[in-house]
Amino acid sequence: MSLATPFTDFMAIEHPIALAPMGGSAGGALAAAVSNGGGLGLVGGGRGSRAWMERELAIVTARTGKPWGIGFLTWAIDIDTIVWALDQRPHAVMLSFGDPGPYAARVRATGVPLIIQVTDLDEAQRAVDVGADLIVAQGTEAGGHGGRRATLPFVPTVVDFAEPTPVLAAGGIADGRGLAAALALGAAGALIGTRFLASHEAMVPAEVRKAIIDGHGADTERTRVLDLARGSGWPAKYTARVLRNAFVDRWRGREEELAHDLEAHRPYGQAVDDDLNAISIWCSEAIDLIHEIEPAADLVHRLASDAAAALARAADGTQTTPSR
Amino acid sequence: MSLATPFTDFMAIEHPIALAPMGGSAGGALAAAVSNGGGLGLVGGGRGSRAWMERELAIVTARTGKPWGIGFLTWAIDIDTIVWALDQRPHAVMLSFGDPGPYAARVRATGVPLIIQVTDLDEAQRAVDVGADLIVAQGTEAGGHGGRRATLPFVPTVVDFAEPTPVLAAGGIADGRGLAAALALGAAGALIGTRFLASHEAMVPAEVRKAIIDGHGADTERTRVLDLARGSGWPAKYTARVLRNAFVDRWRGREEELAHDLEAHRPYGQAVDDDLNAISIWCSEAIDLIHEIEPAADLVHRLASDAAAALARAADGTQTTPSR
Repeated sequence: MSLATPFTDFMAIEHPIALAPMGGSAGGALAAAVSNGGGLGLVGGGRGSRAWMERELAIVTARTGKPWGIGFLTWAIDIDTIVWALDQRPHAVMLSFGDPGPYAARVRATGVPLIIQVTDLDEAQRAVDVGADLIVAQGTEAGGHGGRRATLPFVPTVVDFAEPTPVLAAGGIADGRGLAAALALGAAGALIGTRFLASHEAMVPAEVRKAIIDGHGADTERTRVLDLARGSGWPAKYTARVLRNAFVDRWRGREEELAHDLEAHRPYGQAVDDDLNAISIWCSEAIDLIHEIEPAADLVHRLASDAAAALARAADGTQTTPSR
Repeated sequence: MSLATPFTDFMAIEHPIALAPMGGSAGGALAAAVSNGGGLGLVGGGRGSRAWMERELAIVTARTGKPWGIGFLTWAIDIDTIVWALDQRPHAVMLSFGDPGPYAARVRATGVPLIIQVTDLDEAQRAVDVGADLIVAQGTEAGGHGGRRATLPFVPTVVDFAEPTPVLAAGGIADGRGLAAALALGAAGALIGTRFLASHEAMVPAEVRKAIIDGHGADTERTRVLDLARGSGWPAKYTARVLRNAFVDRWRGREEELAHDLEAHRPYGQAVDDDLNAISIWCSEAIDLIHEIEPAADLVHRLASDAAAALARAADGTQTTPSR
């Protein structure tokens, strides 16, 4: 059973699934595995570290002959990063968080598909204006950085707003039912991050995989605390969804104080080395639905087949009736 | 095209749609219209005002011969309210917000289906323990009072947790695509509130309908400010999603101060009479998707047929491909 959409047609891929380009975690091995599984693997280019990208893009091009791409933090890069990335012949470039204006024309001039992630309708307007080929509507359930809108009502709103530009849903999607829901909402597919962290190919410590398997969505929250402590430079608009920990508990509601308290940074810096409890584990609210670590290519197949089954079950009215 | 589910089978209704029992807004006329449209109309019994209920239940029983029910704020009622309500021969009783323990056995002893709304997994456990026939998993996108979990990841988590008890999805569902997504997530239907406020039969001022039609989800937020100002007695756990207004802006982040500042209550009391901007308009984050006022029975039919179409479109891979 195939779930053909404008996204699969446009990118010439099998399944309507894209890997979220998680900076530092979505390396070449994970992106290649997702592409080989029939999805669109996107390497997490983050702020555009040349050394990291050179290594990981060598891996992705060596391991897959299928379409792959690379994503960046828009606010953290410059035009040289985009020019260099386009020279590596990706099949898509994705820009997230910040104004894509300075880079969109350059990507479009090469004919490489431009994917822009948005967290509110103002950003969706900007994505349409600069000519995005695909728009990712990211809900607040997403792991890591994001905005305030929830996926379920935000996705169809962006679909209507951006028509006819195809929209991918992101945030809170971790199983076939979530992908099925995204398609039912009118999205042309889903961009999935945290679920792929619990794969063999993700560049994360075993402790992170374990925390995702064991954790609950109720234990996640959006916060600026860790960004402030790290001096990460993230725009205040974008908070990060993390598993709650002692450091977040300590500084919640005291963000201004933390930002101006250099002393406060020291225990955090030590804790990163010493204490897993203080490490920021970026993850989605949907971690209740993640129960095992799998090869990423198998995961792509399973997400797609489970989504097709969920849609068929819902459409046919064949949900089983429990006895009263 | 029919969307049969364990919910429609169990309640002997046509469409997997329930009216959220919005206190004061979901009266007998609206509940009867939803039931006559093939859904399950639930009168908003709120805190159990006898005079209000007598009037509205007379209306619902006069206007429909189909299944209907009544919902209450669990924290605000007593056993006499339940006993009285059961004497009115509803086809379902719904309990939301608070411990259903003191009332569940009484409802179940009569054989009337018991619906319990939950906002987190602890509440879901309690609902299972007391023998709920149906569980409503309500996401934070919902209008009015609710919790912190988002519908898209929360619903399948509750479905897995509560199996085999059927689950309805609530929060952020305002069109056929949202209902389709709920079914794709494994829910047996959707409980819908705000969309039905924009109907002819809702007991709301024209200004509220207009605000819902004109408003945007980005302009809603969860807050305790209005409850504190009203001295409403709501448990602190449950915030209310409202359209932002000057009063909420003024007191955001100063809830403790407001709670102890009796003087602050006065301007609010005046403003309710004087200034629409200060009235709390309870509504869902999904209001971007609400464009017109319709008769509620027509709305039930359209939501169901649009949901069936959305599921068929997604399952068949027949989304249209825009030109590149």
